[in-house]
Amino acid sequence: MSASFPCFTDYATRFRASVDAALSARCPHAEGSPARLTAAMRYALLAPGKRLRPMLALLATEACGVEPERAMPAACAVEMVHAYSLVHDDLPAMDDDDLRRGRPTCHKEFDEATAILAGDALLTLAFEVLATEVRPPETAAACCAALAQAAGRCRLVGGQADDMHPPQADRLDPEVGLEALEAIHTRKTGALIRASLQLGGLCAGASARQLAALDRYGRCVGLAFQIADDLLDVMSNTYALGKKVGKDAAQGKLTFPGLLGMEPSRRRAEHLIDDACEALAPFGPPADGLASLARFVLERNR
Amino acid sequence: MSASFPCFTDYATRFRASVDAALSARCPHAEGSPARLTAAMRYALLAPGKRLRPMLALLATEACGVEPERAMPAACAVEMVHAYSLVHDDLPAMDDDDLRRGRPTCHKEFDEATAILAGDALLTLAFEVLATEVRPPETAAACCAALAQAAGRCRLVGGQADDMHPPQADRLDPEVGLEALEAIHTRKTGALIRASLQLGGLCAGASARQLAALDRYGRCVGLAFQIADDLLDVMSNTYALGKKVGKDAAQGKLTFPGLLGMEPSRRRAEHLIDDACEALAPFGPPADGLASLARFVLERNR
Repeated sequence: MSASFPCFTDYATRFRASVDAALSARCPHAEGSPARLTAAMRYALLAPGKRLRPMLALLATEACGVEPERAMPAACAVEMVHAYSLVHDDLPAMDDDDLRRGRPTCHKEFDEATAILAGDALLTLAFEVLATEVRPPETAAACCAALAQAAGRCRLVGGQADDMHPPQADRLDPEVGLEALEAIHTRKTGALIRASLQLGGLCAGASARQLAALDRYGRCVGLAFQIADDLLDVMSNTYALGKKVGKDAAQGKLTFPGLLGMEPSRRRAEHLIDDACEALAPFGPPADGLASLARFVLERNR
Repeated sequence: MSASFPCFTDYATRFRASVDAALSARCPHAEGSPARLTAAMRYALLAPGKRLRPMLALLATEACGVEPERAMPAACAVEMVHAYSLVHDDLPAMDDDDLRRGRPTCHKEFDEATAILAGDALLTLAFEVLATEVRPPETAAACCAALAQAAGRCRLVGGQADDMHPPQADRLDPEVGLEALEAIHTRKTGALIRASLQLGGLCAGASARQLAALDRYGRCVGLAFQIADDLLDVMSNTYALGKKVGKDAAQGKLTFPGLLGMEPSRRRAEHLIDDACEALAPFGPPADGLASLARFVLERNR
């Protein structure tokens, strides 16, 4: 499977620089925005990262046979929502993390009030970008709706809330635990990944059938991504991952390797990636980018 | 001026019950949204309050000769943003308030993580409501853009950030202090008030000239509202206002009465209200509601 790795890095190289330039251009230091607030927003938004969600949006547009550049505002919007959610999740009242991507978290680098406000402003900016840049307005409104639903109380925020106050369930029963775990991550990680693909599809004027195929791909990749992340938490060291390692286990959080074991978790992720790639078949070669990205999810921890 | 009070309460009675019903209907307990999160959102959103911003949106639509009901989704959206901003502003890392509208603040009633997430979810829900309910889509996109700009880093969030970390200025010099104070409140309170009127106008299909007139009204009313609020902070007692009184002064915050004195502050507010009402002249009788509401701003602390 390692043959796909160079292919993915081709895509990544092609897109990442332009994504970062586009993100930076949409969040400049500007008169009217307090300098410290803007600095915190840029610190969070332009942090080293995979830019997975923007790439999914751009590659979804490409899969539909449209220039990926068309989805750049949407790509920036999903990354802004992702960045905001990380800033708020890291807060002392939430996951209380000091490190993120190898650097101090936003509230450590700045202060707690600034971090809360920077998150708020990034979330708001995401909708401003969609509403003012996506054309035609029907598509802008559809993108705002899809992103708001993915980021809202039933999905992204709801998943984090459940993570903070897990619903009562017999967490020692593997079946119940697995269901609860998938429910949290389908929302917490999966929702925004699926939204990235939907927004990319919407920007390309995708058909209902194409949107459904992209959603199936997104569901599978999102869950596989979370499993891979859990595996990384167990396997990596602080230097490589840039965050406290084994923290999930130490906090008694549900994880896939914790519930299923390492190898079954890995196999499950592989099946999900196969499923994801199957969903892409109708798109043909324009979906090669999405296929490579899916396979890369597994490469990360080999 | 007290003659206008019964007139305003007519309007208020007419609209408030329907606003509260509309807010409640858009934030129900729902499968997928954690019960504690939804409860915190509803606690903040349906708290006793004036519903000033929804009323401004509805009355702006009415001023343009359109059924106010047309602006109900926009009215709900601005109140959601207002409620979110209060929840986040009250947090321990921000203004650290225990009481709001006579009740425990959201993080006191629930917990800090839930309050942060409830604020996030209310902000997100505002855009969902606009994007999915406002018609036609051109208007939905325009409303999302206007609300995002008002709520963003250059205005609502920017004002709060400056409030937390005031820009360096000679705060003892009354002229500099007044300018800094107006700059903070033009953004912190004024931006959302102006946006409420713009959204109401947009939902009514207002002309550019009508939107400009509504904006002039909004600028004046927004600032007058803040001056009246500062006066209330000095004059009221905890029972009447439902929050810690004299807190602004105790925290050394800039206020209008602190910089100008009580009577000059009151006169300034009165001039602003006269200005606001003058801006309404071209609308004729359909703008009577907005005129009454403007005058009510001053009645509150007589």
